Amino acid sequence: MDDLVGQYFEAAVAHLRRVREEEAGSIDRAAALLADAVEQGRRIFTFGAGHSSLAAQDVVYRAGGLVVINLLNVPGMTGVNVMPAQLGSALERVSGLATATLDLTPATSGDLLFVISLSGRQVMPVELAAHARTRGMHVVGVTSLAYPGQVTSKHPSGTFLKDHCDVVLDSKIAVGDHELSHPGAETGFGSVSTIVTSALMQSVVASAVGKLADRALRGEGSTPPLFRSGNVDGGTDWNAKLMAENADRIYYTF
Amino acid sequence: MDDLVGQYFEAAVAHLRRVREEEAGSIDRAAALLADAVEQGRRIFTFGAGHSSLAAQDVVYRAGGLVVINLLNVPGMTGVNVMPAQLGSALERVSGLATATLDLTPATSGDLLFVISLSGRQVMPVELAAHARTRGMHVVGVTSLAYPGQVTSKHPSGTFLKDHCDVVLDSKIAVGDHELSHPGAETGFGSVSTIVTSALMQSVVASAVGKLADRALRGEGSTPPLFRSGNVDGGTDWNAKLMAENADRIYYTF
Repeated sequence: MDDLVGQYFEAAVAHLRRVREEEAGSIDRAAALLADAVEQGRRIFTFGAGHSSLAAQDVVYRAGGLVVINLLNVPGMTGVNVMPAQLGSALERVSGLATATLDLTPATSGDLLFVISLSGRQVMPVELAAHARTRGMHVVGVTSLAYPGQVTSKHPSGTFLKDHCDVVLDSKIAVGDHELSHPGAETGFGSVSTIVTSALMQSVVASAVGKLADRALRGEGSTPPLFRSGNVDGGTDWNAKLMAENADRIYYTF
Repeated sequence: MDDLVGQYFEAAVAHLRRVREEEAGSIDRAAALLADAVEQGRRIFTFGAGHSSLAAQDVVYRAGGLVVINLLNVPGMTGVNVMPAQLGSALERVSGLATATLDLTPATSGDLLFVISLSGRQVMPVELAAHARTRGMHVVGVTSLAYPGQVTSKHPSGTFLKDHCDVVLDSKIAVGDHELSHPGAETGFGSVSTIVTSALMQSVVASAVGKLADRALRGEGSTPPLFRSGNVDGGTDWNAKLMAENADRIYYTF
C-alpha cells in the first residue's frame, strides 16, 4: 500500500504553504477590518454551515482568541450535530433563513461578519453575505475559488459568496474536497478543508491581534481583549473581567 | 511588527510534521481498529467537548469520509454553540453525564469510540473513556500528553484520558494552546489545536480506508463505504444508497 498517511500530511502542509504565500494580502486586509472593528467597539460575528461551521467556531470563546468574536448561531447549521444530518444541507438551500437570522441580531452598519462556505454556492451563505452588505456591514468571505468555475450557483442570482464580500480568503480546496485516492476505493477521500479554513481564520485573528498590540505599544489604543486558558492560574477570573468589560457586544453569555 | 501570520503557518506546519513523524505508529494502530470495526459491522462513535468537538465532527457525515462514523451528540457539548458559552465548560466537570450518555446508545462490546480532549483532564472525557472500556468498547484517545505532567486531573481518580485508551494519539499541543506572543498583548494567542487534531482524525480515517481498500483489491472484503461530494453528479443518490445499506449502525438519520 502507498503511504496514505504521509500523503495526507504532505497535502495538508502543501495547502497551508500555498495559502500562506498566495493569500497573505487578503489575510492582512481581513485582519485590518477585524482590528478596526475591535478597536471601534463594533459587533463581530462568524458563520459557517455544516462542516464550514467548524472553522467559524474555532475562533469563538477560545483561549488566545478575541473575546469579542460571536458565533452567528443558526439552529441546525452549527456543525453536523443535527438529526437527520441531511437537514443541515437542506437548510442551506432555504431562502429567507439568512435574512431572518441576521435581522434578529443587533448587527448594523460598520459591524463585521465572517462567512465561511467551501463551495460558496449555496443559498444561505450567498443570501447572508448579500444581506449583510445591504445593512452596511463589512463581510469577509472564506471560500474556495475553485468552485465558481466548475459548479453552478444554487442562488437565483447565479452569484457566489465571493461576489458579496469586502475581502475574500481563498482556501483553494479542489471541488470534491479530497486529496487521496486508492484503486480499491470507489471515491476519493482525505479532506484538508477544515485544516486550511481554520488556519485562515486563526491567522486573520493573529494578525489583527498583532495590529492592535502594535497600536497599544505606541500608546494609540487598548491591548487586544484575549481569552486566557482555563488551565492557567487566574485564567477564569481574567476572562470574566474581559467579558464584563465587553458585555455590550458579546452575545454568548448572560 | 514581526510576521505573525508567517509564524502562525510555520507553527502549524511544524506541528503537522512532528505528529506525522512521531505518531505514525499510533495512527496505524488506531486505523487498524477503525478498519476492523468497519469490516465487522461494529458501531463507531466520535466525541469531543467544546472546541475538541470540531475535529470529532470533521470526520462525520463528510464527503470522502466513512458513512459509518457517528457523532456522540451530547447537548451543550458539540462545539461552542451553547448559551451561555461557559455552560459548555461547566458540563465537562459534571460527573454522571458520560455514563448516562453512553448507556443510551446501543454501543456494546467490540464497538469503537474516539474521544478527543486537548487536556484530557476533565471529568467528561475521562469518565466516558473509562465507562466505554468497562462496556468492552475499544477507545482511541486524541489528547496532548504535555498536559498530564503540568496540570492536575479534575477527575476524582487523578487519571487522564490517556489512562483509559487502547490507542493514544498525542497532539503534542503545549499547555495554554498558543503559538504566538507580542509585547503589546497580555496573553499568548494563535491556536493550532484544531488543525493538528483534525489532521490526526483525518489521517486515521485515510489509513483505515487504505487498509479496507487493500483488502477489497485482494478479494478479502468490501470496498470502504465512503460518502461522495454533493457537488459531484450522482453523489446524493450514491450517499443515500450507502446510508441505506448501513442503516443498522448509522444514528444520524431516520
